[in-house]
Amino acid sequence: MGMTMTQKILAAHAGLKEVKAGQFIEADLDIVLANDITGPVAIKEFNKMGAKGVFDKNKVVLVPDHFTPNKDIKAAEQCKMLREFAVDQEIENYFEVGEMGIEHALLPEKGLVVAGDAVIGADSHTCTYGALGAFATGIGSTDMAAGMARGKAWFKVPSAIKFELIGKPTKWVSGKDVILHIIGMIGVDGALYKSMEFMGSGLKNLSMDDRLAMANMAIEAGAKNGIFMVDDITKEYMKEHKNKNKAFKKKIKIYAPDEDAVYDETYVIDLAKIRPTVAFPHLPENTKTIDEVGDIKIDQVVIGSCTNGRMEDMEVTAKILKGKKVAKNLRLIIFPGTQQIYLDCVKKGYAEIFVKAGAVFSTPTCGPCLGGHMGILAAGERAVATTNRNFVGRMGHVDSEIYLASPAVAAASAIAGKIFNPEKL
Amino acid sequence: MGMTMTQKILAAHAGLKEVKAGQFIEADLDIVLANDITGPVAIKEFNKMGAKGVFDKNKVVLVPDHFTPNKDIKAAEQCKMLREFAVDQEIENYFEVGEMGIEHALLPEKGLVVAGDAVIGADSHTCTYGALGAFATGIGSTDMAAGMARGKAWFKVPSAIKFELIGKPTKWVSGKDVILHIIGMIGVDGALYKSMEFMGSGLKNLSMDDRLAMANMAIEAGAKNGIFMVDDITKEYMKEHKNKNKAFKKKIKIYAPDEDAVYDETYVIDLAKIRPTVAFPHLPENTKTIDEVGDIKIDQVVIGSCTNGRMEDMEVTAKILKGKKVAKNLRLIIFPGTQQIYLDCVKKGYAEIFVKAGAVFSTPTCGPCLGGHMGILAAGERAVATTNRNFVGRMGHVDSEIYLASPAVAAASAIAGKIFNPEKL
Repeated sequence: MGMTMTQKILAAHAGLKEVKAGQFIEADLDIVLANDITGPVAIKEFNKMGAKGVFDKNKVVLVPDHFTPNKDIKAAEQCKMLREFAVDQEIENYFEVGEMGIEHALLPEKGLVVAGDAVIGADSHTCTYGALGAFATGIGSTDMAAGMARGKAWFKVPSAIKFELIGKPTKWVSGKDVILHIIGMIGVDGALYKSMEFMGSGLKNLSMDDRLAMANMAIEAGAKNGIFMVDDITKEYMKEHKNKNKAFKKKIKIYAPDEDAVYDETYVIDLAKIRPTVAFPHLPENTKTIDEVGDIKIDQVVIGSCTNGRMEDMEVTAKILKGKKVAKNLRLIIFPGTQQIYLDCVKKGYAEIFVKAGAVFSTPTCGPCLGGHMGILAAGERAVATTNRNFVGRMGHVDSEIYLASPAVAAASAIAGKIFNPEKL
Repeated sequence: MGMTMTQKILAAHAGLKEVKAGQFIEADLDIVLANDITGPVAIKEFNKMGAKGVFDKNKVVLVPDHFTPNKDIKAAEQCKMLREFAVDQEIENYFEVGEMGIEHALLPEKGLVVAGDAVIGADSHTCTYGALGAFATGIGSTDMAAGMARGKAWFKVPSAIKFELIGKPTKWVSGKDVILHIIGMIGVDGALYKSMEFMGSGLKNLSMDDRLAMANMAIEAGAKNGIFMVDDITKEYMKEHKNKNKAFKKKIKIYAPDEDAVYDETYVIDLAKIRPTVAFPHLPENTKTIDEVGDIKIDQVVIGSCTNGRMEDMEVTAKILKGKKVAKNLRLIIFPGTQQIYLDCVKKGYAEIFVKAGAVFSTPTCGPCLGGHMGILAAGERAVATTNRNFVGRMGHVDSEIYLASPAVAAASAIAGKIFNPEKL
């Protein structure tokens, strides 16, 4: 019986010829990741288990991105703990405020994850790296601690759903619309503990930034991981984003599914038919196309995050905002994924466009997405956000509302003051 | 008996020919200011006193700058209250996130305060506007409420200290060093309920940004207000920063002190002799010259705030950081005073210099200065900051330390990783 992409990566990392869905395996890890929220918990566990040192100082990655620049004393203490651990353990890939970014934007950019890798991260959106053809999944802080110490983790091999993508998206439709459409179709538990495997002739019409946004939200359908077939676009990206550290050589390994791989289900998705899509409160599955949205007045727009804070997201935002002004009394907060993206936005004139339009252009941070800081909602307020979750109270007060959308829809909405179709600008 | 500058402005606004130190007067107000912390308290008082409307919708200024972009739910609720009041009262000068800035950087920039004005603000650093030859002082939220309703406030006329400035500062010495030097000399209660009046032949060697930083910190010597003689530099600044709102015509009135004005004390300060100066924890009066500082390792540098977030501060920072890198594991947070300053930094290439050096360039906010957000300190951490207060716990944990300095000293220190003399770079 053939294996899926995910199964092949897991088999290879477990030193097995074959694995089957449901089987328990122990796999070697290429990257073990934590942030300023989960890292300190993992470090405490790490110390409690009497671990002397990390398994490989090049393969543990620590990114203080959630509540930075330090939101409050607790955030400051957590970052300090992360920093001191990094210094103590000589961890190469600790990224200080100023050289950092949102972890899931940063790692692919720095070439820290490549095709064929097995990655765990103490953050649910670790699944993002599936866009590169890697197996990547979120784990808890205890597994993180064990992973840091041993470089290994236990997994139950997941079964999988195949998404056969065909066709080409229309002008304002991006990967974000595709994944929202899919989650709307299969539901927030539609892929529970399964792999979402993306392939097909339509793949060539999805950029890496599209794919990263899609893989990022696999967890929002309950998936263990999301993963894309590697093609020339992936290879080109990995060539551009090679890690420069000589001690950190990465081998790219490309795993295609076996011809007789078993999938629980197969969906054929025609990208050409997908409309700009919005997820209404309070679940990512509550999707409507932009044509069905109606008149929804908004107070805030947030563009950025590990889902949509990449260069193409900034580009489309700049294109829409150029020469325009945000609606009166509306806050538009744009936060790029990394300092490199920030810098590129400055150089390309996007930062100027954003500020002239009446936006604030924040330093990279997870902040607003998870109700951390830099854009929290009051009772009764509504936001359009390019983030990944619109659960009750996710961005602030329990009586606030979040509408998930693409950067194009979000930028158009910021100008209109209500949820708006970018096609109609 | 002659009057001081402050006394002449107060007399004019009280409709009196003469006032004397110690006299109680009621003065008409040109601007009544509040922010997202003090505004909501004032609005509650305003409603409690049964006030129907503000005395003049052009003269009440509301700036949500302290915990914005909204730090948390409480901040979001406070900003919402300010915004709703502004809409309800048709307040012209409410500045939404995206078009705002730190209040004391914003008001002079927008031409909302000019020479001869009487201004109250529910924020202690309202004294900043004295740089323009205005009387400006911080008041509590109840006085603010009454001021919004009636356009008047009671004052005890202050006596004054004269600062006769002579000479020209050396290359890396700025207004910040001058005011730190003065506070070091007279102490944090050295001007208690008095006016600090700045004049003399050395004035021509202090830019408006120097003067704004100096007047800003008058309160740190306990002063009721700080005020500068108006000269060509002031006039030029006011010409450049004319308010564009036609409904908001400002008359500039220049008040020089009477020749026989009575001053409690007179200090002659030779600007040429002032050294780069640092205020050690935990009071602004604990000053040392840069030559006496010794070896003080630091964790964070903060450049910005209502004291030093203006264009010249950004310029000197860029000059020092250009082509350099901040010390390893040190956070450098730069936050400009206003969105206009942010934009100018982007256009002039400073934003690029900052980020390339490893700094984060934040949206305008009071945040880190008062331990609000965007750069809070953990226990045991030390910061060099261009802000105005280094009280215990001001920027975070009670066991953290703040060293107040100029942008030049701060930027040099960020590179060195310890408090450093910019002359030695």
